Amino acid sequence: MFRALFRFSTLALLVLSAHAARYPSFGTLQTTNSSGVMNVVINNTFSSINLFDLHVQSDLANLIEILQANGTDIRVVPESPLPFYDPGLPNMTFPVALVWNITQLPQATIAVIEGRTRGFGNEFLMSCDMRFATTAPSVLLAQLETSFGLNPGAGGGMYLAHEIGRGRAFEYVLASKDIDGATAARYGWINRAFDTSAELRDYVQALAARIALFPAAGIAGAKKGINAVSRPSMDVIIEYAQDIIEVLAETPAAQALSEKFIAATHNQSICPLELNYGEELVTLFQ
Amino acid sequence: MFRALFRFSTLALLVLSAHAARYPSFGTLQTTNSSGVMNVVINNTFSSINLFDLHVQSDLANLIEILQANGTDIRVVPESPLPFYDPGLPNMTFPVALVWNITQLPQATIAVIEGRTRGFGNEFLMSCDMRFATTAPSVLLAQLETSFGLNPGAGGGMYLAHEIGRGRAFEYVLASKDIDGATAARYGWINRAFDTSAELRDYVQALAARIALFPAAGIAGAKKGINAVSRPSMDVIIEYAQDIIEVLAETPAAQALSEKFIAATHNQSICPLELNYGEELVTLFQ
Amino acid sequence: MFRALFRFSTLALLVLSAHAARYPSFGTLQTTNSSGVMNVVINNTFSSINLFDLHVQSDLANLIEILQANGTDIRVVPESPLPFYDPGLPNMTFPVALVWNITQLPQATIAVIEGRTRGFGNEFLMSCDMRFATTAPSVLLAQLETSFGLNPGAGGGMYLAHEIGRGRAFEYVLASKDIDGATAARYGWINRAFDTSAELRDYVQALAARIALFPAAGIAGAKKGINAVSRPSMDVIIEYAQDIIEVLAETPAAQALSEKFIAATHNQSICPLELNYGEELVTLFQ
Repeated sequence: MFRALFRFSTLALLVLSAHAARYPSFGTLQTTNSSGVMNVVINNTFSSINLFDLHVQSDLANLIEILQANGTDIRVVPESPLPFYDPGLPNMTFPVALVWNITQLPQATIAVIEGRTRGFGNEFLMSCDMRFATTAPSVLLAQLETSFGLNPGAGGGMYLAHEIGRGRAFEYVLASKDIDGATAARYGWINRAFDTSAELRDYVQALAARIALFPAAGIAGAKKGINAVSRPSMDVIIEYAQDIIEVLAETPAAQALSEKFIAATHNQSICPLELNYGEELVTLFQ
Repeated sequence: MFRALFRFSTLALLVLSAHAARYPSFGTLQTTNSSGVMNVVINNTFSSINLFDLHVQSDLANLIEILQANGTDIRVVPESPLPFYDPGLPNMTFPVALVWNITQLPQATIAVIEGRTRGFGNEFLMSCDMRFATTAPSVLLAQLETSFGLNPGAGGGMYLAHEIGRGRAFEYVLASKDIDGATAARYGWINRAFDTSAELRDYVQALAARIALFPAAGIAGAKKGINAVSRPSMDVIIEYAQDIIEVLAETPAAQALSEKFIAATHNQSICPLELNYGEELVTLFQ
Repeated sequence: MFRALFRFSTLALLVLSAHAARYPSFGTLQTTNSSGVMNVVINNTFSSINLFDLHVQSDLANLIEILQANGTDIRVVPESPLPFYDPGLPNMTFPVALVWNITQLPQATIAVIEGRTRGFGNEFLMSCDMRFATTAPSVLLAQLETSFGLNPGAGGGMYLAHEIGRGRAFEYVLASKDIDGATAARYGWINRAFDTSAELRDYVQALAARIALFPAAGIAGAKKGINAVSRPSMDVIIEYAQDIIEVLAETPAAQALSEKFIAATHNQSICPLELNYGEELVTLFQ
C-alpha cells in the first residue's frame, strides 16, 4: 500500500562526491564515475512513471552500503532480499533507515530534479545535502501524505520546516500542495532553480567537481556539524514521524484513500492524477 | 499593565479546519462553521482598536477548550472566571498557556491579518500554523516588548527566529520595528501577502476547504512532526521567555514606560502612537 | 597555521548598543562611544589585508571582557598575554570561546561588512546578533574551511544552517564558495545589503541609536530567548565543530594545503588568491 506514496517521476540524477572507483550496475540505477564524482541516474524501468518504489529503494540501499565503506573499489554487490530493518538501525523501518543513512554518508550528495517528486520521493530529496531543479512545468514537488490520511513518515515535514520555515511547511504538508521549481527555490525548499536543463546540469557538475577537489575528511567533518543542528534527531524521527505513520496506515480512512488512488491511477500509470496530483486530488474526494 | 502589550488592532480572521458542529457565540469572537471549516472573527467591542486583551484571551481559551475535545457538538460553554493558570499546564501563566495550547490543537489553524498585530498579538499569530496578510499599509506586525524594557514573554521571539532567521529576529525584536506585509512575506514571517483583501480571503478559504477534505487524524499526525522540530519546547519557553518577563515586568524602567504609553495613548485608544508605533515610539523617549 | 583561515579583509565596523563609558584604545580596534552606542572599527595595521588574526582576536577578547561587565567606566585594560583557554569556558579553545562570548553579551551587536570576510572572520560575523553589508563587489563572504581539508571549527556552519537553511549551508560550506552581498541578503546570511556605503552606515547608526533608547535589561532578556533556540549549544559546538577541527588540523592533507596557501599568498598579502579566493582556489589543486 505504501507504493502509492513513493512516486518520483521522470529523471532524477544524484551526484555524489566520492573517491574514484568502479561500481557495479544496480538494476534501477545507472552509475558513472570519474574524478571523484559519481553520477547516479534513477531510471526505474519497472514503472512507467519512474516510481521511487521498492526496486529503487533496494538498489539505493545496496549503493549506500558501498558508499558507507567510503568508496572502496567493490566490483560485485550480491543481490539480497530487501530487509525490513537495517541491521545497524534496528528501531527504524527500512525506508526510514534508507533516507537517514543518506544523511549520514561521508560524501556530499546533490539531488537533481527534472520531474515530479512527491511523498517519499521528496523525503529522499530532503535527505540529500543539496537540491537543484529547473523552472520547467514538469518539476513539481510535494509532501502529500496528509491527503491520504497519513503523515510524512520518514521526517520529510521536519526537514521542510527547517528549510522553508514552520508556517510554509504547515501550508504545503497539511494541504498536500504541489510546489513548482521557482517557488521552491524562493522558499528554500531547493537550493536553486535553473531555466534550462543544460544550465542545471552544468552548474551541478561544476559544483560536484569543485567539492571533489577537497580532502574527503574535511567534507565528512563539515557535514557532521551542519547535520548536528539542522537534521531532526533519530529519536524525534522515530517518535514523531515513523511511529505516527504506522498507526495512521492502519486506519480505514487512509486505507480507503490509498485504494481509491491505486484504482484511479490504474496502479500508478501515467494519468492526470499522477501528473497533476496537486490539482487533481480533489477528484478523490468527490 | 500587560494590556499595553496585547494589541491586535483591526480585523483578524482565524480559520480552523475542524469537523462541522454548532459552536456557541463567544463575546469577542464571531464564529461561523461549515464543511469542516470554522471562521473566527476577532471583534473586541470593548476596545476601539480591537485590542487582544483579556476579553479576547478568555473567549479564545473557551473556544480552544472545545476544539481540544476535537469538534464535539457542544452548544453551551459555561461562563467561567479567567483562571490565571491552565490546570493542565501548571507551570505556564494564562497567556503563555493560551498560545501554547493553540500550537497543540489537532486542527489546522490559519491566521488572516488585515490590521496591526503587535506584541502578544504577534505571539498569537506565531502560535497559529499559518499566517496570511495583505500588502495594505494598515498591516503592520511587530514584536515590540524590548521597547518597553520587556521581552516577548510567550516565546514570540523564538518562533520568529525559526521563521525569519536569527539575525532578522534580533533586528525586529531588539529594535521593536514594525514590518509591513510584503516584507514579512519575503522574510517568511508570514506565508504570503496578497494585494487585495478579496484575494487574501479567497486564497485562505480555498486552502482551509482543501485541508478540511482530508482525514482529521492525518492532519493531527503531520502537525506533531512539524511541531516537534520547529516549535520551542515548553521548558525553553518557560525558562527563556516567561520567567524573564516576570522579572522584567517588576523593574521600574518597564513599569514607567508602560505607564507613559497608557497615558500617551489615552488608555490605548486610536491615536498616532497606536497606529504607527514603529515610527512614533521615539516620542516616548523624548 | 590557523592564521590562513582568519581572514577579514578591508573595513569592518562593529556597532554595539551599550551604556556610555570611556573605553581604552585597543591596538587593532578603534572605538568611539556616544549615546549608548559604541562603534568599533577593526583596523589591523599588522596586516595588509586587515586579517582577523591573533592581534584582533586578543584585542576583541579584552574589549568583550569589559562589555561583559556591562559598560562600567574602565579606563585602563591591562595588556595580558593571550590565554589559550578562557578561564570561564575551560572546554573551549580561545577562538571558539571568543565568538561564543560575543553571542552571550548583554548588549546588542551589529556587524557592518564592507570587505571580504571568510573563514573565522565569517564565524565572527555569525556570532554577532545582526549583519549588514553593501552590494559592492568588494563584499565577499565565505565559510571556506572545507577547501583546506578542515571544517568551520567554531560553529560557523551551524549558524549558517539556521540562517540560510540546511541545503544552502551545505552548498556554501562544502564547496567553500564566496557569496556576494545581494545574494547573502536574499538567502538570509546577512540582514540586508545596501547599494552604497553611506546608506549602510546611516541605516545601522539609526538602528543602533534606536535600540540604545531601550532599557538594557529588556535587550539582554530578549537576546536570551532568541539565543536559546537559534544558536547551537555549547556542547554541540564543542563536539561537532571544535573537536573535529582539532583532529582535521593534524592531517597531512590539511597541513599541506595550508602551507601551499601561505606560500601562494606570500604569507597572506594582497594578491588574486586572497581577493578572489572563491574563484582562484582551484589553482591550489592544479
